[in-house]
Amino acid sequence: RRGEMAKLTQLIDNEVFRAYATYTAIVLLKMMLMSLITAYFRVTRKAFVNPEDAASFGKGESAKKYLKSDPDVERVRRGHLNDLENIVPFVGIGLLYALSGPELSTALLHFRIFTGARILHTLAYLIPLPQPGRGLSWAVGYSVTFSMAYKVLKTAWLL
Amino acid sequence: RRGEMAKLTQLIDNEVFRAYATYTAIVLLKMMLMSLITAYFRVTRKAFVNPEDAASFGKGESAKKYLKSDPDVERVRRGHLNDLENIVPFVGIGLLYALSGPELSTALLHFRIFTGARILHTLAYLIPLPQPGRGLSWAVGYSVTFSMAYKVLKTAWLL
Amino acid sequence: RRGEMAKLTQLIDNEVFRAYATYTAIVLLKMMLMSLITAYFRVTRKAFVNPEDAASFGKGESAKKYLKSDPDVERVRRGHLNDLENIVPFVGIGLLYALSGPELSTALLHFRIFTGARILHTLAYLIPLPQPGRGLSWAVGYSVTFSMAYKVLKTAWLL
Repeated sequence: RRGEMAKLTQLIDNEVFRAYATYTAIVLLKMMLMSLITAYFRVTRKAFVNPEDAASFGKGESAKKYLKSDPDVERVRRGHLNDLENIVPFVGIGLLYALSGPELSTALLHFRIFTGARILHTLAYLIPLPQPGRGLSWAVGYSVTFSMAYKVLKTAWLL
Repeated sequence: RRGEMAKLTQLIDNEVFRAYATYTAIVLLKMMLMSLITAYFRVTRKAFVNPEDAASFGKGESAKKYLKSDPDVERVRRGHLNDLENIVPFVGIGLLYALSGPELSTALLHFRIFTGARILHTLAYLIPLPQPGRGLSWAVGYSVTFSMAYKVLKTAWLL
Repeated sequence: RRGEMAKLTQLIDNEVFRAYATYTAIVLLKMMLMSLITAYFRVTRKAFVNPEDAASFGKGESAKKYLKSDPDVERVRRGHLNDLENIVPFVGIGLLYALSGPELSTALLHFRIFTGARILHTLAYLIPLPQPGRGLSWAVGYSVTFSMAYKVLKTAWLL
């Protein structure tokens, strides 16, 4: 069992894989942060969807008025869904890319640009910045994932 | 090719990785179950979004009345989306965590608590239980993923 | 470092893993395509959610009228969410399945049927085809993921 563990540890010791692990953990934590921001706006705006949540803030009729939609809550939720739509492909394709043997410097360039773009996307969504701020940050992250997918398909292609 | 296959099999033979594979399959199957529950409520409540779905249950005007929103359907869908938002980070960070060389007992503790918390979260959402039942089960799963991310970043950190 | 890189490359050299990488990249790219189709419909239908997006197409009152919901946009978005709900389990369980040592031919059968079913699902959603076209394509993809999960749990089971 010691030998197997050593082999597993080699994966996390590989520099490209370590870079993948670092940036994947960061973007997933950033995505998880959206839940806390949603909760913050729901509580401060008193805007809930579930009757059992509203009931924590008032009884009977007074609870019902907290069952409402709030533009700030909906904005964070749209940002969260956009994260899911874009970070899921990054995590999946990025793993395959990290295993396809790229140069460390090229891999770091991909991971850094994607992570930076997604942080900018969240800021552009929440502030909000005028367009094309959010659109561009989305397109940059999208292109990075596309570039990694190209490398994966070129290396692994077996249909 | 035999040698490569042997090496691959070593990964699934590693106990921490086997535990990760088991719990990941379980939570992903649990998440997939939400689709079936949504379909069940859509059919029994006759509440559809797509005209072509409603058309299976009535013609013309009678089909149109099945194009409606139903609180039970919406509740399951919110639970499903919450699963996506929380199980995706668990699967991604959990993989890196399993490869970061944790003790088997520590890893099992993380995987078991997360899986239990997400099952409780679904029950709390669907029954529904009064708060803070759902909130606490969400927070426990969230904290487990956060704890695994900390271990990943401590082990792999390469920015 | 050379030795580690060699070991990593072995993973991508394994034929089952290469097949997994190919089909995973394809289905994730297909999912990413939904973002472009949503953007296309939002721009051609002039149907936006964010005021800063509508502002690119008109000023003041004229911008406000572009803040509307459009059935084609909503249809693509439902297809996108359905992709997330089904492709996430495929990518996660598929990785574990590829590492559980299946026969190449069996693995290819799983990956090919899933990918074909999801492409048909998108076509059935966007055209739209009458039911049970979309329902069946969804069920086929779902069953493939379920079958892979069974193999993973049989091989890895460690609770």
